[in-house]
Amino acid sequence: MKKIGKQTIQMENFPTISQSASIVGPKESEGPLAKYFDRCLEDEFWGEKTWEKAESKIIKETVNTVIAKSNISSTDIDFCFAGDLLNQCISSSFGLREINIPFFGVFGACSTFVESMCLASVFIDSHAAKHIVCAASSHFCSAEKQFRFPLELGNQRPPTSQWTVTGAGSVILSSEGNGPFVTYITPGKIVDMGIKDANNMGAAMAPAAFDTLVTHLQDTNRKPSYYDAIITGDLGYIGSDILEDLCKTKGYNINHQHNDCGKLIFDKEKQDTHSGGSGCACIGTVFSGYLYQLMHEKKINKLLLIATGALMNSTSSQQGESIPGIAHAISIENCKI
Amino acid sequence: MKKIGKQTIQMENFPTISQSASIVGPKESEGPLAKYFDRCLEDEFWGEKTWEKAESKIIKETVNTVIAKSNISSTDIDFCFAGDLLNQCISSSFGLREINIPFFGVFGACSTFVESMCLASVFIDSHAAKHIVCAASSHFCSAEKQFRFPLELGNQRPPTSQWTVTGAGSVILSSEGNGPFVTYITPGKIVDMGIKDANNMGAAMAPAAFDTLVTHLQDTNRKPSYYDAIITGDLGYIGSDILEDLCKTKGYNINHQHNDCGKLIFDKEKQDTHSGGSGCACIGTVFSGYLYQLMHEKKINKLLLIATGALMNSTSSQQGESIPGIAHAISIENCKI
Repeated sequence: MKKIGKQTIQMENFPTISQSASIVGPKESEGPLAKYFDRCLEDEFWGEKTWEKAESKIIKETVNTVIAKSNISSTDIDFCFAGDLLNQCISSSFGLREINIPFFGVFGACSTFVESMCLASVFIDSHAAKHIVCAASSHFCSAEKQFRFPLELGNQRPPTSQWTVTGAGSVILSSEGNGPFVTYITPGKIVDMGIKDANNMGAAMAPAAFDTLVTHLQDTNRKPSYYDAIITGDLGYIGSDILEDLCKTKGYNINHQHNDCGKLIFDKEKQDTHSGGSGCACIGTVFSGYLYQLMHEKKINKLLLIATGALMNSTSSQQGESIPGIAHAISIENCKI
Repeated sequence: MKKIGKQTIQMENFPTISQSASIVGPKESEGPLAKYFDRCLEDEFWGEKTWEKAESKIIKETVNTVIAKSNISSTDIDFCFAGDLLNQCISSSFGLREINIPFFGVFGACSTFVESMCLASVFIDSHAAKHIVCAASSHFCSAEKQFRFPLELGNQRPPTSQWTVTGAGSVILSSEGNGPFVTYITPGKIVDMGIKDANNMGAAMAPAAFDTLVTHLQDTNRKPSYYDAIITGDLGYIGSDILEDLCKTKGYNINHQHNDCGKLIFDKEKQDTHSGGSGCACIGTVFSGYLYQLMHEKKINKLLLIATGALMNSTSSQQGESIPGIAHAISIENCKI
């Protein structure tokens, strides 16, 4: 393993993403990717009394599912990296308190899933671990209650707003296997361009995605066309347009390769989510369900996955602060480089 | 680097803790360790309008201080690992949004400081980075407001309660240097023994500290007497007694080596903090200020540092949940093993 360029780490042993799993809520189950998820829930509570407990159950069962599918005994999994959007990450810590695996709590807002995969890749590549499970969750109802307004108020959502994905994604990274392989990680810097609208997360996060993407391309000496797909986490429609425009200012045209999990998970015409999906589970479920499958089918062989996060809370917005963004990138390829 | 035993990683290249810094609030400035901190503040606001902004300023200036003391250019620092107790870790992300260093957000409640050091150690040891800055903060006023009651209410605190330390600690881990060296890390599992009293965190976290400590000793085949000091993060008086009693049930007597940062930072007689200090900054400032100095003076040569965290929030308590605990251990020694 070695650091190259400004902020990219090149793998030496190329960790394998040996298994993935995803569980989604009812709205995601009506979307275009429904058939790729392991389980589609019929309601937001899943038999629990509160949304927070339901979210904990979702991440717990997603991790149980990925372990069951992997045929790896949970006692052979060395570490768990996980996080979520709830205050003090209670979805992960309550959901995963019984798995009995050493636990690293991660907070990168909606970038948590890829942040976890970046950390796990370094652990696997350096022989600190053989198998690591990564997971991230979000829940529309718990997120609205915590970040915006109680759902009972029935507030109108502005056109720039995004719909937090209900669900969880999970992957197991292993030291040996047949791929897909992690080849590079490019952890991102915090970028704050002064956006203050908590209902326009795409605009707040796009500059961070731009910074990480351009740095990754420069560090690896790759062009956007190297990749079959460059997939961002949850910029949605507005943030994706901003990212593509920003790239053109640096001479990069990513329009052919770029798509966003927030655009993929919901049907723009039939499902009224305004600017698309968001949340830790947006990239978590779309990667673990859809993109991982496409890589196995060799429909995508070279993927740059860039998760984006908005590092704010309701108090910071009430105190007039802007919204710092962050984006972490991971290069996943079917062949070792 | 290799994994040994159940959950311990043995370093191969032994990262050096090349510098440390700490800033504390007014109450900590009146405590017995005041002379060891880089800066003692005279009030909780430090010229800011809110406690949250003050906490952000504290972590920002602590990181600036550790970088200035280190004589390492900030452009040579590869990554930053940081976190805090505020919802969505806004102290770190707002405080550190201008440092322009790739950023990993970490959440381990009050175990965040050592969790960050564990992650950074793996990065350094595996040549993924040459210099990494780690930091964690907490603030009595922002923590009381968020986890318990607004200070303006003047609520009475029960005897089991602990006093959240106002301050921040920061260290730089480097690939080369003269020590002290990281020799082992033992990341902890989530342990929930059913404690529900949010005013008795020591009792909630002690079983996790016990689990991690015993696992570390078994994995490394060491006895408590190997260490000059076994220092826990913020068990306080009650939690420390529980830990020492639990150890005796397994045949380990740690009474001679064990102390707790929550007991060290405040004067038990003169400063009325009930069960002692707590918060991310408790172990953060006591290690970065006091313990790091003792290691340089060779008064401690072999230190086992165990940070403890309570992975709850106010919503989970309101919903009747118990408090899961976690503890991460790092072995720091003046000689490479």
